[in-house]
Amino acid sequence: MAEPTGGAPLTYEGAGVSIAAQDRALAKVKRLAKATFTRGVLSEIGGFGGLFTLEPDDPAGVVLVASADGVGTKLKVAQMAGAHGTVGEDLVNHCVNDILVQGARPLFFLDYFASGHLEPGVAVEVIEGLARGCSANGCALLGGETAEMPGFYQPGEYDVAGFIVGSCRRDRLLRRENAATGDLLVALPSSGLHTNGYSLARKVFFEVLGLGVGSEVPGLGETVADALLAVHRSYLAAVAPLLDEGLVTSAAHITGGGIPDNLPRALPDGVGAEIRLDSWDEPALFRVIRDAGRVPEDDMRRTFNLGVGMILVVAPDRLGAVLARLVPHGPGWVIGCCVAGRGVRFVKG
Amino acid sequence: MAEPTGGAPLTYEGAGVSIAAQDRALAKVKRLAKATFTRGVLSEIGGFGGLFTLEPDDPAGVVLVASADGVGTKLKVAQMAGAHGTVGEDLVNHCVNDILVQGARPLFFLDYFASGHLEPGVAVEVIEGLARGCSANGCALLGGETAEMPGFYQPGEYDVAGFIVGSCRRDRLLRRENAATGDLLVALPSSGLHTNGYSLARKVFFEVLGLGVGSEVPGLGETVADALLAVHRSYLAAVAPLLDEGLVTSAAHITGGGIPDNLPRALPDGVGAEIRLDSWDEPALFRVIRDAGRVPEDDMRRTFNLGVGMILVVAPDRLGAVLARLVPHGPGWVIGCCVAGRGVRFVKG
Repeated sequence: MAEPTGGAPLTYEGAGVSIAAQDRALAKVKRLAKATFTRGVLSEIGGFGGLFTLEPDDPAGVVLVASADGVGTKLKVAQMAGAHGTVGEDLVNHCVNDILVQGARPLFFLDYFASGHLEPGVAVEVIEGLARGCSANGCALLGGETAEMPGFYQPGEYDVAGFIVGSCRRDRLLRRENAATGDLLVALPSSGLHTNGYSLARKVFFEVLGLGVGSEVPGLGETVADALLAVHRSYLAAVAPLLDEGLVTSAAHITGGGIPDNLPRALPDGVGAEIRLDSWDEPALFRVIRDAGRVPEDDMRRTFNLGVGMILVVAPDRLGAVLARLVPHGPGWVIGCCVAGRGVRFVKG
Repeated sequence: MAEPTGGAPLTYEGAGVSIAAQDRALAKVKRLAKATFTRGVLSEIGGFGGLFTLEPDDPAGVVLVASADGVGTKLKVAQMAGAHGTVGEDLVNHCVNDILVQGARPLFFLDYFASGHLEPGVAVEVIEGLARGCSANGCALLGGETAEMPGFYQPGEYDVAGFIVGSCRRDRLLRRENAATGDLLVALPSSGLHTNGYSLARKVFFEVLGLGVGSEVPGLGETVADALLAVHRSYLAAVAPLLDEGLVTSAAHITGGGIPDNLPRALPDGVGAEIRLDSWDEPALFRVIRDAGRVPEDDMRRTFNLGVGMILVVAPDRLGAVLARLVPHGPGWVIGCCVAGRGVRFVKG
């Protein structure tokens, strides 16, 4: 395990991301967006995906669920490693999960790829990953924009964003309102950092530990690039059968903000969550980051998924069926339960 | 009028944008995307928007038309001028036009906003523009992603991408296959550069002419910032009534690549276009760029809209009605006609 350094502990704010500033701007943005809402809009901004229906009077009509996402500074790791083949899958899977937690299956995806000077080989490698991700999720790569913006991105760098549209029958949407005290929380394992926490993780590996992308992660037996570029898992194959059977009440995709910020998005007012810390073994990668960066526990929890990529809210009488159906996809586990209150409380034992 | 300089003529490739490299990459990307197509996909990539239907067996079913776009380096001008309030409208209107030329009206829009360090005031100013653009087009701003990527964008810079979904009855889609020799081409005036050609335009104004954003454009009586930040016009209000009456056969949004690259996207194999150069007065802004940059005519035509933001393909017996309906929105004019052949031929007289 990495030794703590003598420097100041690393936090996500210290790594350059101001969550408070984001929150203030997002609140204003929500008000601006809400003023544009037309009759087809079923959601307020802030769900994992936006909801729109062409049939506002049909309670069982088709609802389109849409989401936009980026890959964040995981891209920097790909660019340092010269390995551009997986960030596209990260992006598609991230988007798929964002609409899956609202009950939707993907229909189509569009991308935005921007660089200062288009290196066709790199763009094609990224888009091959997008196409692979789309195929694996039964989602059409319907279009996109490839922008060459001289002087805008540094040589060798690019940004990529993705937009997904899926659908769900309105009466089959997962709704936070349906979650209740006593419901159980079933966690699905993540496949690494997914696409969150990379500004902090990069500081730890490349500055505090002074490693390169080809160095071995202390104690892990794999390179920094392999550990940090592990593909963001898609939960579609595991969760879609549960949705078909109506076994899931609500769900949260654990992304930026971790469990404390994302799980409450799947719960109604008056319902909080108790998370049992001894219910899972945190993957070693997170321990390396915590120890080497001397990252405070609260920052770890609000920055990383800590091994938990998705949490399903499940009624107690459906738990057995849910756990059984998950086994072939990699087992889930009961990570806690819904309690009266608000927010997330982490408990030991 | 600006004097030609003694330097080499400016071309878009010389300004750092490699159109050939883009084309090669895009061809590969099209193949990759096509392999992901599911039964709902009605289009190949390369239309102005991608087409997807939830009702593949219904010839009059609802088709979703989706498009992704950016603002390109027009953003740099906004950032130089510290004026972030209009690029959001540019983006929405660009997206609206891209699906309009397929016959679709907008339903909803999502954005991706990325910066190195989130300046909440700037982000909110951009998104206020998005919201204003969405409202003006009857389109819901359904969601988006605001990404803070430390070390990725230079201080004060950001990128913004947009994603639009609209709809159209399948039997009302505008189809290039329906355009025929003898059809007339009706041009709609642009409101400036729209969102294309900014790498070349910035070179001319800021390097060749050595102007600042606050300088007056020679002979124009407005500042460089005002001229270059004029909002990309939305053609929805002008064109939607024509679509309602079935007066338009096909249409092209004149964006990157100009008339020569975009008009053929609205025409079938075997049908070309003859464009009469004396049918309109090119706005003075384009003459300034051509003269000061000594830009070859072919580069001008493939880089800028030259005053033509959209071209409608109209059957001769509908021309009178089309021109009459356009008058309240700013008149259109007959810029040419469809001829046997391929591509675009510019003719004098």
